[in-house]
Amino acid sequence: MIVALAGGVGGAKMAFGLSRVLPPDRLTIIVNTADDFEHLGLHVAPDLDTVMYTLAGLANPETGWGLAGETWGFMSAIERLGGPSWFRLGDHDIATHVLRTERLRAGERLTEVTAELCAALGIRCAVLPMSDDPVRTMVETPTGVLPFQEYFVHLKCEPAVRGFRFEGAATAKPSEQALAALAAAEAIVLCPSNPFVSIAPIFAVPGLDKAIRTAKAPIVAVSPIIGGAAVKGPAAKMMQELGLDVSVVGIASHYRKLVDGLVLDEADAALVPAVEAMGLRGAVMPTLMRNDADRIRLAQATLDWVRGWTSAS
Amino acid sequence: MIVALAGGVGGAKMAFGLSRVLPPDRLTIIVNTADDFEHLGLHVAPDLDTVMYTLAGLANPETGWGLAGETWGFMSAIERLGGPSWFRLGDHDIATHVLRTERLRAGERLTEVTAELCAALGIRCAVLPMSDDPVRTMVETPTGVLPFQEYFVHLKCEPAVRGFRFEGAATAKPSEQALAALAAAEAIVLCPSNPFVSIAPIFAVPGLDKAIRTAKAPIVAVSPIIGGAAVKGPAAKMMQELGLDVSVVGIASHYRKLVDGLVLDEADAALVPAVEAMGLRGAVMPTLMRNDADRIRLAQATLDWVRGWTSAS
Repeated sequence: MIVALAGGVGGAKMAFGLSRVLPPDRLTIIVNTADDFEHLGLHVAPDLDTVMYTLAGLANPETGWGLAGETWGFMSAIERLGGPSWFRLGDHDIATHVLRTERLRAGERLTEVTAELCAALGIRCAVLPMSDDPVRTMVETPTGVLPFQEYFVHLKCEPAVRGFRFEGAATAKPSEQALAALAAAEAIVLCPSNPFVSIAPIFAVPGLDKAIRTAKAPIVAVSPIIGGAAVKGPAAKMMQELGLDVSVVGIASHYRKLVDGLVLDEADAALVPAVEAMGLRGAVMPTLMRNDADRIRLAQATLDWVRGWTSAS
Repeated sequence: MIVALAGGVGGAKMAFGLSRVLPPDRLTIIVNTADDFEHLGLHVAPDLDTVMYTLAGLANPETGWGLAGETWGFMSAIERLGGPSWFRLGDHDIATHVLRTERLRAGERLTEVTAELCAALGIRCAVLPMSDDPVRTMVETPTGVLPFQEYFVHLKCEPAVRGFRFEGAATAKPSEQALAALAAAEAIVLCPSNPFVSIAPIFAVPGLDKAIRTAKAPIVAVSPIIGGAAVKGPAAKMMQELGLDVSVVGIASHYRKLVDGLVLDEADAALVPAVEAMGLRGAVMPTLMRNDADRIRLAQATLDWVRGWTSAS
């Protein structure tokens, strides 16, 4: 079993690659739910949806999130009715939120609802929310603490970041499915998702943190920073605001106590010695995923590398 | 103040006419909510929406319900996800249900939510749900009791009707706004809506029944049956199944204890004596509303007729 930890777009792309090189019963993707929120009375789970849509081949190739061929009649009607329009829900996308919300209100767990949605979309590997309990990322800024989507979407990541809180994480429990997958893991892969708001919330759930740290499997991360910049999203801006080195070395420093190895992009090949000096294994690969072939190649190369550790050691 | 009692398409058309011949503060439309239901976790209020959309000039002119220029991305996504597709929610229409549901769950009354939606759509007369409490039409058929939308939409009115129950009506309370409008009414108009499933539920709320019956205002109904057939919907089929005369005389018989006068279509002019023989006033007008001009003409003629009673008597 390979267990991947994923957030949004970058994580979803790598998860797609893994899903194409592994049998479905050998892959479990544990997805961040700390940027879930209730909007217009609907339970919106951005990272779960990005992973689902990407695995199903339905994602919008230009944005990486949302659905290809989306239409926006709902939003135009919401605006006509004076409703909030800062978070845009597409006509097709909203069907996911409506069905999810209905089933959660009926008492189903998010893990079950996600499995049903995945089954309907033909996704055969396991996609698991990190917890069925609510965890909510709060962003600490100089002017106050903001709910994640307020910071991320409404304010377009403009406020400087001082830190993060993951409300509910301390008491959130991992699902049995997630714990079973981690216990059976041959390797654990931290996808190139935002370390602070996609991967950190997963480790903020005590049961997951413990299960990952005590797993016998080797743990590898793929750097979301290439050549000192984030491929997408606010990871680099956050690193700067948090006083970290905005480079793959900063990523290695952040992950050094969590992972055994780090995949660096070819652009950062010169930094392998600095990563290894921190006690991590380092490998250089093309990590930019512009198309499906890139995703599959990165997934295969990462797995090959980690499997080599076991046979060599 | 003119108070109109309305259900769906026929009622909405007459309400539109009234809204064009009366100052907004002189018109209150009390709308059936007994065919409201929860679908996909959303509070759907078909008659309120038909009245709102019609008054706002947004209704689909071909169907009479729903929105003009509607799109169906949401439904195609619901089908892809294996959700129920028998009740079709358009992309624009669903914005109404989502906002309504969110506000109801936040504790607002349906009367308030409806007022807000109407204000956003530029509707200036009062549109009031018959009650803020849930009332649900149940259809008695030879094979069992069906929720209204199951009968009406899913089974396309195919089962024979034995009778109706309005669950919750006995304990439902009218809003203060509805009672105030009825107390101030100069005339009460029963729009040409289905007598059994649009008008009857309004009278099934004891407080409304009493307020209408004790109002000093004259009460007039516009026949939904023209030439022995319903303009739209299952009214004629229901009359037959209930053993009533499928004609404006059957309507007069059904309404004789509730109203003072009945507007008949020109096609039924020969039946005026039969209506008058039941103790009702009768007037002949063109009642088929094919366009806005028809609606305005019928509304004005009905008001002129009823006002004539007062000045003459």
